[in-house]
Amino acid sequence: MKIIVDAFGGDYSPRETVLGAIDAVNAKDGLQVVLVGDEKQINNVLEGEKYDASRVEILHAPDVITNEDVPTTAIKTKKDSSLVKGLELLASDDEAAGFVSSGSTGAVLVGAYMKAGRIKGVSRPALAPALPTVKGKPVILCDCGANVDCKPLNLLHFAIMASAFSTALTDNAKPTVGLLSNGAEEKKGNELNKEAFELLKASPYIDFKGNCEARDLLSGDFDVVVSDGFNGNIALKSAEGTANAIFSILLDGINKGGLRAKLGALLLKPVLRGVKCKLDYNNQGGACFLGINKVVVKAHGASKRKSICASVLQAATLAKSGIVEKIKASVQAMDEHDRD
Amino acid sequence: MKIIVDAFGGDYSPRETVLGAIDAVNAKDGLQVVLVGDEKQINNVLEGEKYDASRVEILHAPDVITNEDVPTTAIKTKKDSSLVKGLELLASDDEAAGFVSSGSTGAVLVGAYMKAGRIKGVSRPALAPALPTVKGKPVILCDCGANVDCKPLNLLHFAIMASAFSTALTDNAKPTVGLLSNGAEEKKGNELNKEAFELLKASPYIDFKGNCEARDLLSGDFDVVVSDGFNGNIALKSAEGTANAIFSILLDGINKGGLRAKLGALLLKPVLRGVKCKLDYNNQGGACFLGINKVVVKAHGASKRKSICASVLQAATLAKSGIVEKIKASVQAMDEHDRD
Repeated sequence: MKIIVDAFGGDYSPRETVLGAIDAVNAKDGLQVVLVGDEKQINNVLEGEKYDASRVEILHAPDVITNEDVPTTAIKTKKDSSLVKGLELLASDDEAAGFVSSGSTGAVLVGAYMKAGRIKGVSRPALAPALPTVKGKPVILCDCGANVDCKPLNLLHFAIMASAFSTALTDNAKPTVGLLSNGAEEKKGNELNKEAFELLKASPYIDFKGNCEARDLLSGDFDVVVSDGFNGNIALKSAEGTANAIFSILLDGINKGGLRAKLGALLLKPVLRGVKCKLDYNNQGGACFLGINKVVVKAHGASKRKSICASVLQAATLAKSGIVEKIKASVQAMDEHDRD
Repeated sequence: MKIIVDAFGGDYSPRETVLGAIDAVNAKDGLQVVLVGDEKQINNVLEGEKYDASRVEILHAPDVITNEDVPTTAIKTKKDSSLVKGLELLASDDEAAGFVSSGSTGAVLVGAYMKAGRIKGVSRPALAPALPTVKGKPVILCDCGANVDCKPLNLLHFAIMASAFSTALTDNAKPTVGLLSNGAEEKKGNELNKEAFELLKASPYIDFKGNCEARDLLSGDFDVVVSDGFNGNIALKSAEGTANAIFSILLDGINKGGLRAKLGALLLKPVLRGVKCKLDYNNQGGACFLGINKVVVKAHGASKRKSICASVLQAATLAKSGIVEKIKASVQAMDEHDRD
């Protein structure tokens, strides 16, 4: 199993990215990684690290695409960037099963689309993170930002792709699907949602359970929640912002709470750290860019070693699950069903 | 200052609703309330309570509109319900400055619109809660659910109305306005947002500061955040759900964390309770239904005494601030400006 890792582009690249990739190699037998980026800098990080050198390759790429670059232009012109070189290798090397980058989201999406291509029949590839839930198992939110304006059919494709993602992560063959809406009742929703609801309900390829209020996103009641990329992004970021706000208000309370509060916080530290860790979806790996011909995982820009390692292992798990072939088969079956 | 209170419809009505209204009367000199609902049941709750009886009236209404009722039908047919009787009094009594209900949101919105009427020039009335932020001051989110499909002009009206709400609550004459979007950059957004952005940017009637990522909703960086009702609802509910998830995971961690964690939690209890209280936006009052000819506050369905009291006091504050007249003046000035 060969996973290509963009060693540059993230906030803590190349150091944390390279170390995270090495951790993944050490954690998983048979896993090979190709580190793409400035060879000298990558070697500097690798120096003194222990790992099976036969499973780590370097592909030299002197240039980097940053968040300041315009994605489409950058993919076309920065031919020596780690992102472009990595994605070209992903597309051309039959052994390469997946790709991980913590670089600019826009550039990763555009690049993956242009270089590795869209699965035939998928109307729109979509970005899907696996979020933690109260019940422990993850929920796949799809789309969380790749497609701001969507049509109903796009949402059905998101449901099919995210269900395959959920199955790959949890071994649950029949993940439940919810449609993100402004209420749980069937009649709730904006125009897009009402049409998408009918399409999802009629589809034999997913286990649709109706509307999911944003309040229930992290409840664990659904395995997959689909949405257009605009709303999905708002749900995701609102959850992130609220978690940050709570920890910030809590910290302020502890600081102002005198000795009693400080002692309490000290005793409760392992639990509080556990809550934070459980909520940090980056620990579970990156967001999967579903609908592309190879597995593409977008790790958070601020990913550190642990998060990169989780993303590389996630890419390997997804590739091993045959997610691309499963999505292809479902979309094809759907097409044939519609033609009949 | 006379505020009409729908004593029925909420989950804890009439007891908590009546007691909350009485608390408000006791807290604020000169405040009068009219309790609308079954006279006998209301009197039962009032028995033994201490309050200035000259400032508490009862308007008998034997019927109740529930969440199971279809709003439009219920407003038309349940003429003896506390909601309809209360709203009719609001519309007909010149002294009545505001109305509070913890009943069915849909019925309150439809009823307020039909009975008290829309402010001339306001394209769509909108529901706006005041949410807590990290910085302490509230942020007004408008719309959070009254209008699922919106046009750009609606969002400008939301900004004008919510700015008046913010000023009434904080005395800040120039509240900052953000547009809820999938990124902070100017070019981010779906089709509606991109058009609304230009309209908000060009308006001399608000202090527009650009796009607000959902992550920054509770940061305190904006005084007002506008959105269509679908997205606003998702941002609000996602925040609620995340807060619930965090407290649930925390509780689970404490339960499983042995003696150390339990002792820590005990010591930290006042701080944790403070965080929960600060985050519970119901403590700050209900959501204001902006754009109606009188002040209408929708308290949470699960409102208890404290939350009802806060909602009644909020309605009085808003009425005193002359928010309806201010919105009227702004919308009229805008109309004249556009005609020039």
